[in-house]
Order: sequence, then C-alpha cells, then structure tokens
Amino acid sequence: MTFLFNSDAKRGAVFSQAFASALPDIPFRMDAATVDPDAVRYLLTWTTPADLARYRNLDILFSIGAGVDQLDLAAIPRHVKVVRMVEDGIVRMMQEYVLLAALALHRNLPAYLDRQRQGLWSPLPQMQAQDRRIGILGLGMLAEAVLERLKPFGFPLAGWSRSPRAMEGVICHHGAAGLATMLAQTDILVCLLPLTAETRGFLDAALFAKLPHGAALIHVGRGPQLDQAALLAALDSGHIAAAMIDVTDPEPLPADHPLWRHPKIILTPHIASVTQPESAARAVIDNIRLHLSGRDPIGLIDRSRGY
Amino acid sequence: MTFLFNSDAKRGAVFSQAFASALPDIPFRMDAATVDPDAVRYLLTWTTPADLARYRNLDILFSIGAGVDQLDLAAIPRHVKVVRMVEDGIVRMMQEYVLLAALALHRNLPAYLDRQRQGLWSPLPQMQAQDRRIGILGLGMLAEAVLERLKPFGFPLAGWSRSPRAMEGVICHHGAAGLATMLAQTDILVCLLPLTAETRGFLDAALFAKLPHGAALIHVGRGPQLDQAALLAALDSGHIAAAMIDVTDPEPLPADHPLWRHPKIILTPHIASVTQPESAARAVIDNIRLHLSGRDPIGLIDRSRGY
Repeated sequence: MTFLFNSDAKRGAVFSQAFASALPDIPFRMDAATVDPDAVRYLLTWTTPADLARYRNLDILFSIGAGVDQLDLAAIPRHVKVVRMVEDGIVRMMQEYVLLAALALHRNLPAYLDRQRQGLWSPLPQMQAQDRRIGILGLGMLAEAVLERLKPFGFPLAGWSRSPRAMEGVICHHGAAGLATMLAQTDILVCLLPLTAETRGFLDAALFAKLPHGAALIHVGRGPQLDQAALLAALDSGHIAAAMIDVTDPEPLPADHPLWRHPKIILTPHIASVTQPESAARAVIDNIRLHLSGRDPIGLIDRSRGY
Repeated sequence: MTFLFNSDAKRGAVFSQAFASALPDIPFRMDAATVDPDAVRYLLTWTTPADLARYRNLDILFSIGAGVDQLDLAAIPRHVKVVRMVEDGIVRMMQEYVLLAALALHRNLPAYLDRQRQGLWSPLPQMQAQDRRIGILGLGMLAEAVLERLKPFGFPLAGWSRSPRAMEGVICHHGAAGLATMLAQTDILVCLLPLTAETRGFLDAALFAKLPHGAALIHVGRGPQLDQAALLAALDSGHIAAAMIDVTDPEPLPADHPLWRHPKIILTPHIASVTQPESAARAVIDNIRLHLSGRDPIGLIDRSRGY
C-alpha cells in the first residue's frame, strides 16, 4: 500500500515528514524507477504519467493543484478515483489575491499606476463600495471563501454557476439566462471557473458586450478561458476599464506579448493561489484516512462534469 | 444660530439639503460675504479663515477633513471647540486603501509590476499571512477599523500609540520603548498617525533602521511625517523592500520628483480616504445635536495634544 509522490523534492520533503508521523504504515516513495508498481495505491502528480498503466492497483490519483484540467482524464482507468487539491493554503491565497484585485480595481489602481508613470498627481472620482457590484463566475469552494472576505466591505455581491446555488448575502444566478442577468449588473467580474470543454474561450467578446460599459475583469481561472485579443480590444475601446490577470495562454507568457504592456492591465505570473506543502500534506493524509474508512475523499472529481 | 459652510459648492449642495430636512431651524449659509457674522455659531472649513475674528459668537469650528493639522489652532480663540471629521465614509475608504496596500505588499505586487514592465514571467517565493507581521503607528478610530478588516486574513497584528491601549487580537505597544519593540517585529508598517510637532519627520532613517531587513511601508498619515530621502535610501539599500505611499510633501508632488519613479514604490495622490459629503453631513448634524443638548461633539480636539 505505497504512496508515490511525483512532484518536486522540496515539497516531497514536507510530505515525507508528514506521512512518517501521521501514516507510518503507508510507505512513502518519491522514486518511480525503483518502486514496486503493484504496491502503488496512491499517486500524487501534476500531469498524467505516460506509464500510468504500470500501477495496476492504483486507487486514487491526487492532483497537486486545485484544478484537474492539466490531467488527461480519458487516459486514467475508470476505477481510479481522481481527486483535486482542496487545502487551506490554496483557499487563503485565493482570498488574498481576489481581495487585492477587487480593491485594486475598485480604487482605480491601474489608472493611478499609469499616472504614476507620467508623474501626474490627479485624483479620480471614487465610486463607493455600496455601488460597485461584484459578480463571480463559478460558485465552488474558492468562490465561497472569497465572497466571505468581500462581504464586510459592503460591495453588492452576486455569483453564477451551472446549477442553482444559494448563499447568504449573495445573489445567485444559474444557467444561460442567469448569466446574462448577472453580467448586466456586474461592475467587477471575477472568473473562478474550472477549465472544461464548456469554459474554454468563455470570456470572449460576446460575454464582455453583456457587461456594463466600464466594467473590470479579474481572471484567476485558467488561461484558455480568456480570449486575450477580445480583452485587449475591449480595453482599447474603453468598454472594459481595467483588468487584473493571473493566468494566460500560453504560460509563461512570452516577453513580447501585448498583454504585458497594456496600461490597463495588471498581470501576475499565475501566483494567485499555489498549493502549500504543509497544508496540502495534511489534506492528502486526511483524504487517505477517509478512503481507508470507506468514504469518498474531499475533492473527488465527477468525470461526467470534468471537475 | 447660523451654520456657515466654507468649502466647495458641490459638497455644499449635499450639506444644504441634509440641513434643510434635519435641522430646519438652523440657517445654512455658504456665502461668507453676505452672512451676518454675529449670527454664525458653527463654521465648517478646511483651513482657518483669515477673518475668523469676525465670528465673535462662534461655538464650533468643524474641520472638513479627518485631521486638523491644516488648521492654525493658535489662531482660533480658546472658547471655540475644534472638531475633526469623524464619519463613516472616511473610515470605509481607509479600510479599503490599507487593505489594498497591505495585500499588495504581502503579495509582492511592486516586484510583479516591475517584472511586468520587463515582460518577465517569474513567480516569487510567497510568505504566508501567518508569518507576515503588520504593525500600525497610531491606534485611533481609523486604525481600529483597519485592524478589524485585517484580522480575518490571519496576519499577526500589532499597534503603537503614545498612551496605553488594549484591543482584542492586537498586540498593543506604547511609548518610546514600545515603539522599538514593535518595529523590530514588524514586516509591514502602516503609518496612521496625526500630524503634530512630535510626528513631523517621524518616519526617518533611525526608525527604518529598527525594522527588520526587507520590511515594507504603507504611509497614509501626512506627507511631512516621512523623510522621503531616507525612504529612497532605504529602498535602494534593500533594507525597505517596498512602499505604498498616499501622502507626500509637497502635495501635489512635482512631476520630476524621484518618489514617482522608484520601482519599489506605488504612489497615489492622497486618495486613500476622502470625506464623503452624504455621511459627513450626517456626522456634522449629529454633532450639532449633541452640542445643543449640552454634550461634547464626536471628534473634539484636545488642544494640548493637537489632535
């Protein structure tokens, strides 16, 4: 009943120590070349290994990241449970980043940065939080945690998901009609969707056109969800006032890409939320205990939805 | 019993309407040239008018701003109460700005902006909130409100004031010894001090030297509290990692000033917190009612302290 860790050695050292004290009966291995493949019941990895079929007794494939879009789900045998990373560290970092981005856009930081480059002391009119409507695409656990932090500031809050949800203090929309309704009433749009066939290219010119003039975008989903050319055009026309972007397509973004240079964009290199080894190790250990007691792990993927 | 409004007409229109419905018996005037000076009991102003002595029956001088450092207190007769602006709008804006600044510095935004200018995709190591100690200079009402918003993120919080204070979840220091203790344990220092003779030049090379290497600064007090040359030197040496500055000396800052151009500084033009006319009018009306009922107004200045 071996746990095979297929990620970087620095994280591995943290995991190894946590496993030794919490699950001493489960051998922890980091070297796929020398492990007995038949003994491997648990695999933690970022992408799907080419030789996955070796592990005939695999029970769970754990993603090291919050998403599973980097995995080739079709290449993973149906009996293997696929589990995404649900851990406190990812949640806390996403709360920080989206609050930073929402406050930066609310307080006109991109415009002030542009004025700073010009040495221009020029205060702008400031909208009050009670008038700045924030709408989140995707109402999973990360969105829920982000909304909790946004609430005390007094922004009117809304969210959209594929199927109906209910959250206190948040106007919840769903389905195609709900999407159009929410977009028309959103001043700052946050994308926290998982990457699936349906969400690829989701943030496109047609979607931007449904936002009010002067709306802003926070993109913390996945790069391929955004039509980057459509965003640049919407920023140039003024329809979108500003954007804070943490994910791009491709990653890393080439140095000469226009997204880097647009004065209305703040761009960070996919750092919004990164798995923290200490809390991730605890989360994986808790999930193995759930599995050993016959229950479903937290973060289990529904293959029919792809997330 | 006239109220004389000595500020811009746009704010005046909001005040005038609020007074007409809440205090219809108190004449509201905006034209000092035609008012009967003996009737003026209340004056709202930014600076001390040169002809203040005209208003022999003045009871209260209201500052339009949160501070009174722009007033010449010595020129105001001792029997006149001086009251600073304490209103919800100022508090909410300061909460937003300091949270924005704290999260920006915590998440290395100045360094990412610098990398963005170079088209450089390069994630940085990220400290966790539980290890990022935030210390606030000045523990007045604004600091207290800011600390409430910081708490849920898990930053270790401390504050310093001249005289002892106690606040739940905040390590409170006071006096000269307490200042050195707090500075030695502060990764992000926030200046929310009032401008007085004692706080002029407070943020100087000696103070920066007491901070740990790599600390960051948020300055939302008043421009003359900061030795700008000392900050630039500390940023250049790397002792201070980054700063977010909303107040400068002078204001407006000249276009060729080096503060504008330093890659480790985010500079905004004194927009952190601005009096909001709607909530300010309510606050002044409430204070007049307190005064009429024989009680002290909220925000009454202690002239011996100067704030």
